[in-house]
Amino acid sequence: MSNVDALPRNAANHVPLTPLGFIAWSAYVYPERIALIHGALRQTWHDTYLRCRRMAAALQHWGVARGDVVAVLAPNTPALYEAHFGVPMSGAVLNALNTRLDAPTLAYILDHGRAQVLLYDSEFAPLVRDVIAQATHPIRVVRIEDALFAGEHGDFGDIDYETWLSDAVVADDGAAARHVGRAFDTVADGTRSDAGPADAGPADAQAGPPAAVPSGPSGLPQDYSPPDEWDAICLNYTSGTTGRPKGVVYHHRGAYLNSTGNVIACGMPRHAVYLWTLPMFHCNGWCFAWTLAALAGTSVCMRRVEAGPIFDAIVDHNVGFFSAAPVVLGMLINAPAAVQRRAPHPVQVVTGGAAPPAAVIEAMEALGVGVSHLYGLTETYGPSIVCAWHDDWDALDLTARAAIKARIGVRKLNLEHATVMDDGMQPVPADGVTMGEIMVRGNTIMKGYLHDAKATEAAFAGGWFHTGDLGVMHPDGYIEIKDRAKDIVISGGENISTVEVEGVLYRHPDVLEAAVVARPDATWGETPCAFVTLKAGRDTDAESILAFCRAHLARFKVPKTVVFGDLPKTSTGKIQKFLLRERARAGGTD
Amino acid sequence: MSNVDALPRNAANHVPLTPLGFIAWSAYVYPERIALIHGALRQTWHDTYLRCRRMAAALQHWGVARGDVVAVLAPNTPALYEAHFGVPMSGAVLNALNTRLDAPTLAYILDHGRAQVLLYDSEFAPLVRDVIAQATHPIRVVRIEDALFAGEHGDFGDIDYETWLSDAVVADDGAAARHVGRAFDTVADGTRSDAGPADAGPADAQAGPPAAVPSGPSGLPQDYSPPDEWDAICLNYTSGTTGRPKGVVYHHRGAYLNSTGNVIACGMPRHAVYLWTLPMFHCNGWCFAWTLAALAGTSVCMRRVEAGPIFDAIVDHNVGFFSAAPVVLGMLINAPAAVQRRAPHPVQVVTGGAAPPAAVIEAMEALGVGVSHLYGLTETYGPSIVCAWHDDWDALDLTARAAIKARIGVRKLNLEHATVMDDGMQPVPADGVTMGEIMVRGNTIMKGYLHDAKATEAAFAGGWFHTGDLGVMHPDGYIEIKDRAKDIVISGGENISTVEVEGVLYRHPDVLEAAVVARPDATWGETPCAFVTLKAGRDTDAESILAFCRAHLARFKVPKTVVFGDLPKTSTGKIQKFLLRERARAGGTD
Repeated sequence: MSNVDALPRNAANHVPLTPLGFIAWSAYVYPERIALIHGALRQTWHDTYLRCRRMAAALQHWGVARGDVVAVLAPNTPALYEAHFGVPMSGAVLNALNTRLDAPTLAYILDHGRAQVLLYDSEFAPLVRDVIAQATHPIRVVRIEDALFAGEHGDFGDIDYETWLSDAVVADDGAAARHVGRAFDTVADGTRSDAGPADAGPADAQAGPPAAVPSGPSGLPQDYSPPDEWDAICLNYTSGTTGRPKGVVYHHRGAYLNSTGNVIACGMPRHAVYLWTLPMFHCNGWCFAWTLAALAGTSVCMRRVEAGPIFDAIVDHNVGFFSAAPVVLGMLINAPAAVQRRAPHPVQVVTGGAAPPAAVIEAMEALGVGVSHLYGLTETYGPSIVCAWHDDWDALDLTARAAIKARIGVRKLNLEHATVMDDGMQPVPADGVTMGEIMVRGNTIMKGYLHDAKATEAAFAGGWFHTGDLGVMHPDGYIEIKDRAKDIVISGGENISTVEVEGVLYRHPDVLEAAVVARPDATWGETPCAFVTLKAGRDTDAESILAFCRAHLARFKVPKTVVFGDLPKTSTGKIQKFLLRERARAGGTD
Repeated sequence: MSNVDALPRNAANHVPLTPLGFIAWSAYVYPERIALIHGALRQTWHDTYLRCRRMAAALQHWGVARGDVVAVLAPNTPALYEAHFGVPMSGAVLNALNTRLDAPTLAYILDHGRAQVLLYDSEFAPLVRDVIAQATHPIRVVRIEDALFAGEHGDFGDIDYETWLSDAVVADDGAAARHVGRAFDTVADGTRSDAGPADAGPADAQAGPPAAVPSGPSGLPQDYSPPDEWDAICLNYTSGTTGRPKGVVYHHRGAYLNSTGNVIACGMPRHAVYLWTLPMFHCNGWCFAWTLAALAGTSVCMRRVEAGPIFDAIVDHNVGFFSAAPVVLGMLINAPAAVQRRAPHPVQVVTGGAAPPAAVIEAMEALGVGVSHLYGLTETYGPSIVCAWHDDWDALDLTARAAIKARIGVRKLNLEHATVMDDGMQPVPADGVTMGEIMVRGNTIMKGYLHDAKATEAAFAGGWFHTGDLGVMHPDGYIEIKDRAKDIVISGGENISTVEVEGVLYRHPDVLEAAVVARPDATWGETPCAFVTLKAGRDTDAESILAFCRAHLARFKVPKTVVFGDLPKTSTGKIQKFLLRERARAGGTD
């Protein structure tokens, strides 16, 4: 029939998928409900949508057009949330920047993405001065002054976010007032020349027609729809553990599908309340920024991730869901009893980046928070594989449950395929032992790396996205991650999973953090070298650590070396193993 | 950036959307969970998926190929559920037939869709004999013998469903056994010639290569994916209130989006238990057939929609959700107290086709069942507009809540646009008064009408799907349906909503059912004519009815005529107003 039905797409039955339709829906159906909580602020979906439309209009006034990049450097504040809608509503691509990066890296990212506009939280004014000075193309700048920021607001002549939004409305109303902001034109030698009000250049305020904010039947702005669901919506840079950050491009289709997929994977109800412990610049908050709009839910923002405010927010705002790296869970568990509060309602946290240890699961459950484990990468829009729970596992004891939760799991419904493959790209046996590379395919995989055809081609070789992570496939089809491909230790021809060794180290009662890397060895090729941070006040020695390892690991897996001290980390909290490898190498060969 | 990112689709990041991925997911992640309950049957997702794959293989053995039509005539049994996956897994298009249709209409449908294969429940053997005799092209037939069918299984030489599935596996295993079934070749004069085992013709068993059922890592069959998400997945015929049934074509993309949209709209949790009171042949059960697979939920099947078994199923199987026409709700409410059971858990019913009256809402709530109102058409994959609830409406009294629930509401998240337009295709004022036609656009609108370019073009005129239903837009953006476009009564130049008049009639304590149509009138052009069915044992007269109307309606809206008796209905339970109009007309003009 497909050959004969002759029924092509038309305007009535095919609309590009986009998460922007979600905020239009929430504002239309639940305009009075609270979208954002931030300190004393309670902002409705109606107001949030209007502000996003104004942001789009303001950007269009500046000549920002379809496919241009707009960067934002901000903590988890309402402005960054609004940018997840306002920027793509203008046709532009949101580049949410990692606030922990240094100026040269940020300048590299802005140059690489050719960002036309940068919105920044005034806390980062000194950093932004440096970034603008180091970037090699002109960037218009908007300063966000968050009422909850206690420090000095570093105004340096750029336009204030609220003024910028307000002016956009005036312009839309046909009034003469039209602001042009200030552009920071930089020259090749890196000296910033403050060009004052811009009237030329790529972000020419005169270039675009005034953006209309037309009214729908209820006085609300109408929906925005991208011309093509394959259009870019976001640009997210990898954290660069192994070189220059790569620009990962998301499209509207994938953002739609992963954010609705989150609802189904996490069982989130309408009006879910979500706490922003996970940075929004991290895979756009794993797409939860859009998920909340699909649910007409409430986002509780957080400038700082601190234990007391987290507990308070959960209890006071009826938070049902949050996402957090293991380090945040550790912070909650180790917080003083005086600040710990147990919510009277069910709370779920999804965690990724490392398997939650049994002790963490137990302690979080004691705090009334259920822990789910998932896996994802910037390239997979965040969550892509989840440890989907089975009711009968509830009856298992803690150790057994932790062992199950240590597995990353199975594909989310919105990811079409996930498997583990050998070097020949054949699925490994589902034996829980044979290691291979975790491979994924589906509609929530990035378009590719911006301006990096070689890396894109390599990532997609053979029609699968190569995660670079090693894992095993268990007989029940659940995947367990074993290591980053480059983190494996090969000792005497045997593969040693550093994750496994680290898992043992974490079970030592005095160990706070641990990381294992390969150390060159004349006899064995490589041996495992353990870097360990002890809990405060502990003075365990290396032999105690090694004895513990010998008791819990095959002999060849036991580290040959133990080094005590703090662990170097990336801006997103990932341990920088390449630095540890350098240190291990510097120790010479045995 | 869209112009410069040069990142096209590839096999790793673009997979056609299809609900078939949902059953692959459920079978993979929750193989041991119960997918189907039917009498004593408890069938797991593993087994259900295997059986669907076998169905696909069996169809491919018969030469059924991408785009061919496979029809099923069955009540809500496991076989019909399986066909929702097994048929499209073969690349074919499922045509679920309305079991209440007569043989000429069914023969017309099979001919119009050029169905290659018909699966039928043996209860309908006599009907199918007639249908096959009247159809003008050869159709291969499979007989489904449901253990719960108490009557005689009308075997007439066709292959049994279970044998057919089993043989497919044998063939897949490479054994020589290959069945060919029986084809019923008909000739132009309508005489059926039983051709015996077919070895030629369009469904040639030799034509297709044996379909493989490859194993995934857990011994499960691999996923099927259509080459294009715009490929047809289902063909559903309208009930034909106004002429020949039209063949509405669904695509994989829309089926994916509406079935996940159901999860979000109804707040359905993972492992939801759903009772099949709504026929699966009705817009594929409003896409809930696929929704349940996305949730690894449980479908409780029902051959017959009867009050006692419904209450028993809800309580015994922990049913949380069902869908039902108002007539079914009436049946539950009016059931003997001896069969009524109140579930100890929350139960939600979604109803459509007519606004649930206050008395129905109240009585259902007393039975522990919450009532939601939604709106959809065959052309919109079923549910498209829902009366999305606001928590603060809970505090309203029954009358106020019923008034709100009488509105069909707002677009589902997966439908991109819904509005009410005047003749010039401009939105009507959101005043709750001005009538216009309900118009929708989005990804869950049909591809079009099969082999009917004229009707397709008319339905999509101006880039919107014209529902043919009249409604008003309330100030809060909620739509209320007022009438079918052709059901309006225009009396003395004033529009009278027959729905409004019927609403009043339904509130009369003695009225069981009511329908109002236009009656030609020399003075007024038209006047409302009421057809009324009284509750058992009541003998109310016309004057009592009219007095009640005068007390509750503007004078010009009060019917001039009241006719008592049963109301003619379509096979799907819709009142056939065109017959009532003929009767009203036959009464002559005043």
